[in-house]
Amino acid sequence: MIQRPRGTRDFGPAEMARRRAVEQAMREACHRFGFGEVVTPTFEQSELFTLRSGEAIVDEMYVFKDKGDREMALRPEITASVIRFFVNEMSNLPKPLKLYYVGNCFRYENPQSGRYREFFQLGAELIGNENPETDAEVISLAVESLRATGLQDFNVRIGHIGILKSLVLEGIDDQALAGNVLRMIDKGDFDALAQTLETNGVTGNLMESITGIAGTKGSIDVLQSVDETKANEHLRELFEILKLQGIDDCQLDLGIVRGLDYYSGMVFEIDAPRLGAEKQVLGGGSYTLSELFGGEPVFSTGFAIGLDRVMLALEAEKELPEYSPIDAYVVPTEDAMRKYAFAIVAKIRAKGLRADVDLMRRSMSKNLKYASSMAARYAVIVGKDEMAKRSVTLRDMESGEQRQVPADFAADELEKALNAPRKHPLSSVPQRGIP
Amino acid sequence: MIQRPRGTRDFGPAEMARRRAVEQAMREACHRFGFGEVVTPTFEQSELFTLRSGEAIVDEMYVFKDKGDREMALRPEITASVIRFFVNEMSNLPKPLKLYYVGNCFRYENPQSGRYREFFQLGAELIGNENPETDAEVISLAVESLRATGLQDFNVRIGHIGILKSLVLEGIDDQALAGNVLRMIDKGDFDALAQTLETNGVTGNLMESITGIAGTKGSIDVLQSVDETKANEHLRELFEILKLQGIDDCQLDLGIVRGLDYYSGMVFEIDAPRLGAEKQVLGGGSYTLSELFGGEPVFSTGFAIGLDRVMLALEAEKELPEYSPIDAYVVPTEDAMRKYAFAIVAKIRAKGLRADVDLMRRSMSKNLKYASSMAARYAVIVGKDEMAKRSVTLRDMESGEQRQVPADFAADELEKALNAPRKHPLSSVPQRGIP
Repeated sequence: MIQRPRGTRDFGPAEMARRRAVEQAMREACHRFGFGEVVTPTFEQSELFTLRSGEAIVDEMYVFKDKGDREMALRPEITASVIRFFVNEMSNLPKPLKLYYVGNCFRYENPQSGRYREFFQLGAELIGNENPETDAEVISLAVESLRATGLQDFNVRIGHIGILKSLVLEGIDDQALAGNVLRMIDKGDFDALAQTLETNGVTGNLMESITGIAGTKGSIDVLQSVDETKANEHLRELFEILKLQGIDDCQLDLGIVRGLDYYSGMVFEIDAPRLGAEKQVLGGGSYTLSELFGGEPVFSTGFAIGLDRVMLALEAEKELPEYSPIDAYVVPTEDAMRKYAFAIVAKIRAKGLRADVDLMRRSMSKNLKYASSMAARYAVIVGKDEMAKRSVTLRDMESGEQRQVPADFAADELEKALNAPRKHPLSSVPQRGIP
Repeated sequence: MIQRPRGTRDFGPAEMARRRAVEQAMREACHRFGFGEVVTPTFEQSELFTLRSGEAIVDEMYVFKDKGDREMALRPEITASVIRFFVNEMSNLPKPLKLYYVGNCFRYENPQSGRYREFFQLGAELIGNENPETDAEVISLAVESLRATGLQDFNVRIGHIGILKSLVLEGIDDQALAGNVLRMIDKGDFDALAQTLETNGVTGNLMESITGIAGTKGSIDVLQSVDETKANEHLRELFEILKLQGIDDCQLDLGIVRGLDYYSGMVFEIDAPRLGAEKQVLGGGSYTLSELFGGEPVFSTGFAIGLDRVMLALEAEKELPEYSPIDAYVVPTEDAMRKYAFAIVAKIRAKGLRADVDLMRRSMSKNLKYASSMAARYAVIVGKDEMAKRSVTLRDMESGEQRQVPADFAADELEKALNAPRKHPLSSVPQRGIP
């Protein structure tokens, strides 16, 4: 046996049906918000990712040489590619640009529970402004994308990098030291931070202010306890617009300090608490990246959803329904009936129903057993006596009830019978009975 | 500027909307036939692909070392991965297994017109039998997948590796020589073949028979000119089943001899003649691969569609409709109206419509210009006078007609107005106005 590479996965039909339904629900949310899909290459020049994330990321990437001896990397994330695409080919389009992507990313680390070497993200980037409106639009899409999947138990936390940044830059004149301090905050290393500030003779007030802000969490009203800045006004407007759109349960969390080098303003995270320690399903914020890739400076706001974690969160919330790939299974009772079976299955499929037919020349009883193992809702039995009357027998595989219908109307009858209301709230599911 | 890697592509929203609609139409065809989706890793151990395709393929693959120093390759095709998955985890499931995939593949060659280093395939594998029924099922799915995209001008050619194989193996006792002869046929190198046969003293009849069979093309009745074999019977039954399912325009072509090492029985190709020299959009056939990967011997039949070529073929057949990412664009006439605009856009989206709202604080006339550039069907104007009456103005962006409607019913009115019949036959298109 040849094993699949460590840290990667194979997904079978039942799991893929669920994943595609969830993905489709999120895509439709993106479309409702006027976001259009982009697809970029699976590998890029390594430089693209080190420019965004720093040289250290090389150790976490799959890297190989191109025929032109250029260093390529399997993408660890997709935002950098989207902004490269924007800078190279879309910078003259009317703003704002609303783009989303769904794709696989690669992380070259030792696999551990819930972390894979190939993983899947859906993300969105709104390019062109840094208004509270644009931030609200992106957070609103993030929330609606998750709601669209049926996920119920998740928390939105919103912060702003600008408050801590201005505090540090105003409190420390030495720019190199200020940079070090920000990096320590970024890492959450508050012990080293306190020591550094002390060593450099920075007054104790700053340390208190930093930990005070990093610990500011709660409703938007908590902002009253923080010195007034431009960022505060931005956050208040942002929360107001979200409320106008029916999103009124976001929490303020000024402790979201990851990516200080990268994000420039609002930052936000969404957790699914049922996932325990690894509960974050989404992260995002506003940033400027286009200049770094040789373009004009343009503000953007974006997020990325971890699709693997969303699947786990959905599973934690509710039992998965049974998967069935077919609505109807067509069974000829004897060899002479096979040709009719092929004609009938073609008609059922032409109605848009999902149908299968015996391809193994099995006996009637083995065929019914197979139909049962496929969780087919109906068997369509094509027998000699029935065909003499140009009829077939529809068998409800759950109840065992049978009735004869004219062969020419078998597809219509099945369609009627299958039009029972669906159990799952994902109305966009392309296949009956899935997920 | 950082360039994207040579031979790869970026796809923007208009192109992706078309590609996803075509992909979705094919997926739905797969579902109607009871095929379930599988997804396998983007890279695999190189060995998987060399076992299937021979060592020479290494030169055409992107290869890199894993942390465990194992040689990995970006997949050049997906069938090998599907069969590996089957052997390792699905071999005990009831047969037949009907699996399909949609994914990106990689070819490490110098890019040329219409050939990319990263390209996209949709394929299907039916695992478990080698009946004419199974072959017919796979060809039928291939045809219905293409028909579902709206493609009209394509030709199906069906052959059988067994006829030439038995001819050679019966005509030449020396097994090594027979192997060489088959390889020459595979390459289409008939001059070298004639010389080899002569050098080895094989009678001229064999050469005549080989070129005779390789040149046998036309309706299934042409088979009468070929010596009767088991393969002939197989092909006749296959054509009969296809006809019963409404597929009656396939051509016999015993000249399809590619992949003699790999395919074991029926082989087929589909061309879109409008594409000129590079006209093949699909190739497939029946094969056994599971044994090579350490599993029990199982017959399979499958195909792969080149999605890039299908897109080109569709473009060659008909003009592309205009792309619009939004149905309605909500425009506040002044700053004080912005908060109403956010509430209204949220309601329109909740109806499932695709709506956008001014995020740039533009003037009314600039907003209407932007809505026009987005090809929005309607503008929803939120003005002071209207809002005093709790109304908004719907503006048809094509005709310029305007009418006031109650704000609470704006979403319903838009839904009604947008429910005009669609121009494109792809009824499954998730977004209005997109093919």
